[in-house]
Amino acid sequence: MWGTRRAVRLALATSLLLFSAARAWSADPLPSWNAGASKQAILEFVNEVILEDSPNFVPARERIAVFDNDGTLWAEQPMYVQLAFALDRVKALAPGHPEWKTKPPFSAVLSGDLKALAASGEKGILELVMATHAGITTDEFAMVVAAWLDNARHPRFHRPYTEVVYQPMLELLRYLREKGFKTYIVSGGGIDFMRTFSEKVYGVPPEQVIGSSILTQYEMRDGKPVLLRLPKVDFIDDKAGKPVGIEKFIGRRPLLAFGNSDGDQQMLEWTGAGRGLRLMGLVHHTDDKREYAYDRKSDFGRLDKALDEAIAKGWVVVDMQKDWKKIFAFEP
Amino acid sequence: MWGTRRAVRLALATSLLLFSAARAWSADPLPSWNAGASKQAILEFVNEVILEDSPNFVPARERIAVFDNDGTLWAEQPMYVQLAFALDRVKALAPGHPEWKTKPPFSAVLSGDLKALAASGEKGILELVMATHAGITTDEFAMVVAAWLDNARHPRFHRPYTEVVYQPMLELLRYLREKGFKTYIVSGGGIDFMRTFSEKVYGVPPEQVIGSSILTQYEMRDGKPVLLRLPKVDFIDDKAGKPVGIEKFIGRRPLLAFGNSDGDQQMLEWTGAGRGLRLMGLVHHTDDKREYAYDRKSDFGRLDKALDEAIAKGWVVVDMQKDWKKIFAFEP
Repeated sequence: MWGTRRAVRLALATSLLLFSAARAWSADPLPSWNAGASKQAILEFVNEVILEDSPNFVPARERIAVFDNDGTLWAEQPMYVQLAFALDRVKALAPGHPEWKTKPPFSAVLSGDLKALAASGEKGILELVMATHAGITTDEFAMVVAAWLDNARHPRFHRPYTEVVYQPMLELLRYLREKGFKTYIVSGGGIDFMRTFSEKVYGVPPEQVIGSSILTQYEMRDGKPVLLRLPKVDFIDDKAGKPVGIEKFIGRRPLLAFGNSDGDQQMLEWTGAGRGLRLMGLVHHTDDKREYAYDRKSDFGRLDKALDEAIAKGWVVVDMQKDWKKIFAFEP
Repeated sequence: MWGTRRAVRLALATSLLLFSAARAWSADPLPSWNAGASKQAILEFVNEVILEDSPNFVPARERIAVFDNDGTLWAEQPMYVQLAFALDRVKALAPGHPEWKTKPPFSAVLSGDLKALAASGEKGILELVMATHAGITTDEFAMVVAAWLDNARHPRFHRPYTEVVYQPMLELLRYLREKGFKTYIVSGGGIDFMRTFSEKVYGVPPEQVIGSSILTQYEMRDGKPVLLRLPKVDFIDDKAGKPVGIEKFIGRRPLLAFGNSDGDQQMLEWTGAGRGLRLMGLVHHTDDKREYAYDRKSDFGRLDKALDEAIAKGWVVVDMQKDWKKIFAFEP
């Protein structure tokens, strides 16, 4: 009997040893991050909120982490991916719309005149979005986006857009989930556009994606219900809309928020105004060799006021050039 | 050495035995449900979708279950709980609004004239909702609701409203979660009203509550950001709005949907139109001794067209009187 007990203890001890070894092997949860202030701030923050005897302990159910998408998880240069989709979609739909040849902003897209397109302003872009994103059912739209993502290639990296994602941020998402966080995307991009790839690419399920949306309408088609996408804005999940979206969709204040532009400023402010320890981070695009370098004057992902606030308030500012060992998984 | 191996095997076998015993003890996951067609349909459905070798197997990440709240998870008679809140709130705020004494619909509330209140129609109710739900911040509103729920009592059962919840449905929610389902509330009620108690009462976290909402606005107060509740409807999560809300907030079609009224009809249709096995259920209020009996002619929770569709399509119709051994946990 004593022998049996001893053997059981031995088996238990072996399990514990294996467990400790596994922990040691995975000692660096962020291998694509260089040692430095940013990495240290993240690791220390996570340890502080997950350790039960820490004064800053937060129960798992309240560990909400929110991430912007364009420029924070994937590249937003030379233009937002969803804009590239809209332009390609205009070209694909053009045969059915002969009037587009002479009608701005469509004519600008079809003749490749990006300057004229830019001149059409927000109103022009909205018109493009409605023509390319509405008028079909939610199921049809998801199929159109998935087919486009399969075939489209990033103009500089010549890879599917879903590979032009930041490896260090994938590691951060996974690390947070391992530590009990629920990871959300909170983006100005279209919610249904992102949901087609968020689970496969980021491990973020559709129900944890928050974004801009157009209205949909429930109706019957051949006795089957569909949701028809209407050419009418429902919600713009950008700037002051981000905290509004977070409260609407999650109903809890995030513990951690990461963005990269002025569009994320209010989301970071809202996160930082919560009680207890919080982490606010900005990805600063400083590496024109491996990716792009831009901030205060960029058309896409302008980072100006939020950078000033980050410096003033001590938010984590990730210097892509210095802080990231590797930017994309496909790098040699 | 052989002895050690044998001891380890013995330990393993003991663990397995204990595990099987634990399973046997918890053999009935729905103890408040009487044996019958409803209970059987639920148990069989869940087994079908969770067993990996079943032709109807669904991976855990896609196991979405949606539940209406009023009349499905808690009592909605003699009036919706949130309406009782609004009426009490009018009384509490009345000293600051002397004009309400003569101004309908407020005057009807203050004089207790529910007939006049009903005559004020949807417009009158909307006016009440805005006066009692808007004009304060999201944090303030949550505190007001929590304080009210602590003190208010159901007029017939003389208990906090959060105890007038259906024990069989609590068991169903828990059972589904144990089997890997993500349980959501999809209700015509106010999203922020429900989120104050959904986690504690139903085990449904705020981010899995979908409901009707008013607009909010991000603004700074004394250097701190707040979300101010505006007196303007954002979204009505009822009838054809329920599939719209499900697609907006979840972005996946539910596997299982439970409601109790015509307001849930489209949610059940939308669920049923998905590929593969789905379960649609209605709670039919048939027990005026232990709860209430109402359906086709009720002002609150009318069940008429959805009942016809349920019968025609073979949805599960739960007969509260016959199917439920116990309705409330507080029953003797």
